[in-house]
Amino acid sequence: MQTTVFETIALWVVLGIALTGLAYALFLRRSVLREDKGTPRMIEVWEAIKQGAGEYLTRQLKTILPLIALLTVALFFSVAVVPPSAEAVERFPGLSPDRVKIIIGLGRAAAFILGAMFSLLVGQFGMRMAVQANVRVAAASRFSYDKAMRIAYRAGTITGMLTDGLGLLGGTVIFMIFQKAAPDALLGFGFGGTLLALFMRVGGGIFTKAADVGADLVGKVEAGIPEDDPRNAAVIADLVGDNVGDCAGMAADIFESYEVTIVSGLILSLSLVAITGQVKWIIFPLLVRGIGVFSSIIGTYLVKGKKGGPNDAMKAINKGFYSSASICLAAFALLAGFYMHEWRAFLSVAVGIGLAVAIDELTKYFTHTKYKPVKQIARSSRTGAATLILSGLAVGMESAVWTLLVIAGTVLSSVLIYWGQPIAFVLYGVAMTGIGMLTLTGNNVAMDSFGPIADNANGIGEMAGLEEEARERMADLDAVGNTTKAITKGVAIGSAVIAAVSLFGSYLTDVSKVQAQLGVPEGARMLTTGIRISEPIVLIGMLIGGAIPWLFSSLAINAVSRAASLIVLEVRRQFKIPGLMEGKVKPDYRQAVGICTVAAQKELTGLAVISVLTPIIVGLTLRAEALGGFLAGVILSGQLLAVFMANAGGAWDNAKKLIEDGNYGGRGSAGHKAAVVGDTVGDPLKDTAGPALNPMIKVINLVSVLSAPLIVQFKRITPGLVIVVIAALLAVVFAVGQSKRTRVTPRRT
Amino acid sequence: MQTTVFETIALWVVLGIALTGLAYALFLRRSVLREDKGTPRMIEVWEAIKQGAGEYLTRQLKTILPLIALLTVALFFSVAVVPPSAEAVERFPGLSPDRVKIIIGLGRAAAFILGAMFSLLVGQFGMRMAVQANVRVAAASRFSYDKAMRIAYRAGTITGMLTDGLGLLGGTVIFMIFQKAAPDALLGFGFGGTLLALFMRVGGGIFTKAADVGADLVGKVEAGIPEDDPRNAAVIADLVGDNVGDCAGMAADIFESYEVTIVSGLILSLSLVAITGQVKWIIFPLLVRGIGVFSSIIGTYLVKGKKGGPNDAMKAINKGFYSSASICLAAFALLAGFYMHEWRAFLSVAVGIGLAVAIDELTKYFTHTKYKPVKQIARSSRTGAATLILSGLAVGMESAVWTLLVIAGTVLSSVLIYWGQPIAFVLYGVAMTGIGMLTLTGNNVAMDSFGPIADNANGIGEMAGLEEEARERMADLDAVGNTTKAITKGVAIGSAVIAAVSLFGSYLTDVSKVQAQLGVPEGARMLTTGIRISEPIVLIGMLIGGAIPWLFSSLAINAVSRAASLIVLEVRRQFKIPGLMEGKVKPDYRQAVGICTVAAQKELTGLAVISVLTPIIVGLTLRAEALGGFLAGVILSGQLLAVFMANAGGAWDNAKKLIEDGNYGGRGSAGHKAAVVGDTVGDPLKDTAGPALNPMIKVINLVSVLSAPLIVQFKRITPGLVIVVIAALLAVVFAVGQSKRTRVTPRRT
Repeated sequence: MQTTVFETIALWVVLGIALTGLAYALFLRRSVLREDKGTPRMIEVWEAIKQGAGEYLTRQLKTILPLIALLTVALFFSVAVVPPSAEAVERFPGLSPDRVKIIIGLGRAAAFILGAMFSLLVGQFGMRMAVQANVRVAAASRFSYDKAMRIAYRAGTITGMLTDGLGLLGGTVIFMIFQKAAPDALLGFGFGGTLLALFMRVGGGIFTKAADVGADLVGKVEAGIPEDDPRNAAVIADLVGDNVGDCAGMAADIFESYEVTIVSGLILSLSLVAITGQVKWIIFPLLVRGIGVFSSIIGTYLVKGKKGGPNDAMKAINKGFYSSASICLAAFALLAGFYMHEWRAFLSVAVGIGLAVAIDELTKYFTHTKYKPVKQIARSSRTGAATLILSGLAVGMESAVWTLLVIAGTVLSSVLIYWGQPIAFVLYGVAMTGIGMLTLTGNNVAMDSFGPIADNANGIGEMAGLEEEARERMADLDAVGNTTKAITKGVAIGSAVIAAVSLFGSYLTDVSKVQAQLGVPEGARMLTTGIRISEPIVLIGMLIGGAIPWLFSSLAINAVSRAASLIVLEVRRQFKIPGLMEGKVKPDYRQAVGICTVAAQKELTGLAVISVLTPIIVGLTLRAEALGGFLAGVILSGQLLAVFMANAGGAWDNAKKLIEDGNYGGRGSAGHKAAVVGDTVGDPLKDTAGPALNPMIKVINLVSVLSAPLIVQFKRITPGLVIVVIAALLAVVFAVGQSKRTRVTPRRT
Repeated sequence: MQTTVFETIALWVVLGIALTGLAYALFLRRSVLREDKGTPRMIEVWEAIKQGAGEYLTRQLKTILPLIALLTVALFFSVAVVPPSAEAVERFPGLSPDRVKIIIGLGRAAAFILGAMFSLLVGQFGMRMAVQANVRVAAASRFSYDKAMRIAYRAGTITGMLTDGLGLLGGTVIFMIFQKAAPDALLGFGFGGTLLALFMRVGGGIFTKAADVGADLVGKVEAGIPEDDPRNAAVIADLVGDNVGDCAGMAADIFESYEVTIVSGLILSLSLVAITGQVKWIIFPLLVRGIGVFSSIIGTYLVKGKKGGPNDAMKAINKGFYSSASICLAAFALLAGFYMHEWRAFLSVAVGIGLAVAIDELTKYFTHTKYKPVKQIARSSRTGAATLILSGLAVGMESAVWTLLVIAGTVLSSVLIYWGQPIAFVLYGVAMTGIGMLTLTGNNVAMDSFGPIADNANGIGEMAGLEEEARERMADLDAVGNTTKAITKGVAIGSAVIAAVSLFGSYLTDVSKVQAQLGVPEGARMLTTGIRISEPIVLIGMLIGGAIPWLFSSLAINAVSRAASLIVLEVRRQFKIPGLMEGKVKPDYRQAVGICTVAAQKELTGLAVISVLTPIIVGLTLRAEALGGFLAGVILSGQLLAVFMANAGGAWDNAKKLIEDGNYGGRGSAGHKAAVVGDTVGDPLKDTAGPALNPMIKVINLVSVLSAPLIVQFKRITPGLVIVVIAALLAVVFAVGQSKRTRVTPRRT
């Protein structure tokens, strides 16, 4: 692969920008840690949260490490199944085929660990920063709104910069080392990142909602004490949950989206490079992402708290976002005109930004208190919880339809932009849409982290008995966070489908490449025949694929229900301890944290194993084409269910808020009680099951692409195949054992 | 097409059996009508129900007639777009091409009207019989349980026999007239039947649940008066709803399933006849269905009420069912051995019966009080309505997964049975599974009608103040009905997917035939290329298709919510009329009936237009292959959503019953209130949105097959095309106008 001097320099510049992003994150970290932590009582509460969050992360790490180790071995040996590709041999000329095999195997395994580590780092570090910021925001809010806001935003920006920096760094370095042999290692990198994100999303989602729902049911509903009341034994678990779910889970998830769009973008770029012989197709997405990081640094730096309160805060954040967006678009246009010498790639990236905006607007329309749907849900509270729930279900379903149509429109625009070109161009267009959609991830994550940080600060304030004025400031901050949060969630789910469609394209390309190596004539390769849903066996694959997200959601919802009821029993038990309700005896917070931690780990492995093994099993039994149908089914069902659950949940949440603001009977009315039911139903839908489908869709797609060689040549038994199959079986046994070992049994007194 | 003497006789025998089934229905009708109608007060209540039901049906007929007329014209002119097929020309040798065109056009239009009329007849007649039986069951239950049971079962059998008789009659007559040119007319026949069924299912579903939910919310929940209390102005509407929804809607729906499996079975049989030159492939399904009707007559005749009460009733019904099933299987085996001289077709039919049993067992497991899922839902009522709803959602999702896997397994078994044969054989196998699955429709419908008839009898008893003993007998009857009802619902939805997969196969065959006529070389025809989900435009089609059932469900649920809240307002208004609550003034029942009637019609046309027009629009804009993807998306999403909604609803319903039977706190406890919320949420899911997806999936598939010729040669503008497009536009305008005209505004006093 021959790059020009400009292109070589450009690659190093992109690398430099990625490192600058990371340096900026460290700079911000120092500035946040310098702030004051407040009163001893605040620090005491905060220590409990920090400890709980730390314990959860350690426990989770222990649970998943064996599986990671197993998969690393499996990935290394997977190259033994297929001889290295022609590109790999060309990339490392003087080496013997066996050497190349080992290099590619090591590359894949190392990239997998790298992806997993980065994802873990973003999640863990992001969460730890959020915890560090919580108490400082609470402390700052006693004196100044703008200072509190600045701390919260900066802490969020750290996570954002880590996401950007690590994602771009990994993709660029892998490409620079492996060049045209990069897909292998890139897939490993993407797989590591998504798998960890799946763990953190699912685990965090179960933890946070079990604690939240459990604490509310037994505290607010049964005992009639306020939220965050120190007598509730689950209150610390609830605060820890905000961190492990909304911070760690979210951050890992967004990192994974950012990373997988790069991975699928680069893989499809490489197939265009192979067709056209022009390296520009692959330099372009890296430059676009580099520009994105650069403009995020500038945009986020511009956000300063103003004296004026929440309105100005929202304005400042928006100013930062639009500054970044303007810099991006101008730079992309320059790139298209002076480097690419054509506008199609630019158009695709612009469509991506447009898609982000469109999904954002749709999400707002269906979940914001200002618009008809939420008002209608709130109004239906007048006839009770049942009509409110029905109304929310209908709104969620409708929102899924429109979001899907927008995404279908995006794919269509790629078809139109590359009209008359081979399918590889259309897939490239889809991948560039994904690149464009997540360009401003730095800003998005910074905005998103707002909510949980302010929420936690508020909780610390309540438990430490802070003054009313400080708590009002934090509530205002929380409200701003709620608005910005919805944006990120919609974009994450939308990007999942775009990334999945790109990976679906990669699967097609990859299977055909393996078939070519095996001597399958061109007319019978998958790129020529396509994935024919009209073949009964492919249709069966599609049906099974479509069922997986439903199974996954069902298990996730059940996991939350089960864990929440354990929390209810535990808090009830502690309420009976003499002196506790009078505030004389402190409850045992660690017990509730422990229950949530164990419950979250218990379900984790099973769900991960479903995601990893079903595509392999379908592929081996029904063959490669049916696995293609399977992927299409997963994408379709996954997208519809994810948006349905996220938006129904969001709409119920805001319908409750609308009523609490004094509409339709207001706080304490029968309608309000109905709205609380709706909100509770929505909680695990929008914060556990819905968001978990995002990494799940991609794990399944990545596993399929990775195992394509295995599947295509299944009939030839090789040592590599045997090792892979044994590893898979070990994973199942391990998963079953794990879920038995970690039985959730609350301590009895 | 050359039939042997045996085959010619066999066809006439099948025709004779169909007519015998109809004669048996008339015989049963006479025997039911002979029974006593009871006290004057009972007759008064009954007259009100009869009148309300009659008004609803008249109103509905008026709403849909214009659309039927339009579509008849469109179907007639649709043949102008494509010259008659080679088979049609061969079928009518001495005639000129123009003459053949007119015959095929007339055939298609006439068959459409025939299908619509039969569907309407089954729905209307079945409902009127149920209304006739209600009051007689109530009267008989004053003296004897077994007599009451016999009347209810016989009334149900009438509908069952009509379903069987008319479905088989239509299919056989069309085949006898058109022979190998039959597909055209068969498609029209199927389309008429499904479209009417869609109207009756959706309209009936909205009516019944609006009345039910509205009456419960304002009566049971707000005013604290019992169900079926005469002071509740919506109580007659509720009873009418049981008839128009559970009787008319259900009957039309099952008729349509029975009919469409014949239609798709015959079309796919004809393609096998063309390949093999053997007529036996098409005679077989007709004989199988003939045997089914014959054995249903015997089986249902064997069901006699016994003195022993409900247990014996269930036994008697089961005895009838298993008698029919044994006769069938023995006769099928004889047919396979002595006529077909091979076992594969028999195996497919047997798989169909197995599928019915498997879905039945799954439905029972997920919705019956005996098993874990419903117990878990009931138990989660201890922590309130929110956890109960979550638990039900998870159960519904899981049940959808397993049901889908069973269906995928059924398709797989066709692949295995016809291993190594061309795809036409596999599709034939799938179609025969559908034929087998609905063989015993006569028994199923007889069992299913039990529930609503007993329910209504009970309501009449309550309103006419019948003695406790009589009401207990009817409650027992109702309980038996609830068990048998679940069976039919599961089978209807399962058969929808099987029929849809067959129609999907017909689409493939049909498009290829049109392509052949247009001179497309064989390698480029759809039967060779397949429907490639890997083409971006086909993927877009699939995404859009997958969204349609969600849109449909959202609209249906909203329609119920809106109409129910109008009912609430109306009943509240009437409660304020002086003297009404004291029982001195009678409420105005007709007003509530009117509100439900108007509301049901209002939404009807919009939903029907979505089902009819979206495939045409997708086909014309994205082309034939994308429409194939669209169909796959509709089938996948439709099946998952339908089962999810039906079973979640059924499970909540039974969780409530479990609590009412004294478990988990029993009647009146906080848990019971939570269960009532769950039941109300489930009502429109299980009785409106879920079942409506069944005919919807098939209408979309039939429209696609019917419009395939139009879509394939869209670029050539012909007079026929212009007429079809104008008719489609008129339909949209009409639909919009309709929904504006019938604004639902309750009268104010």
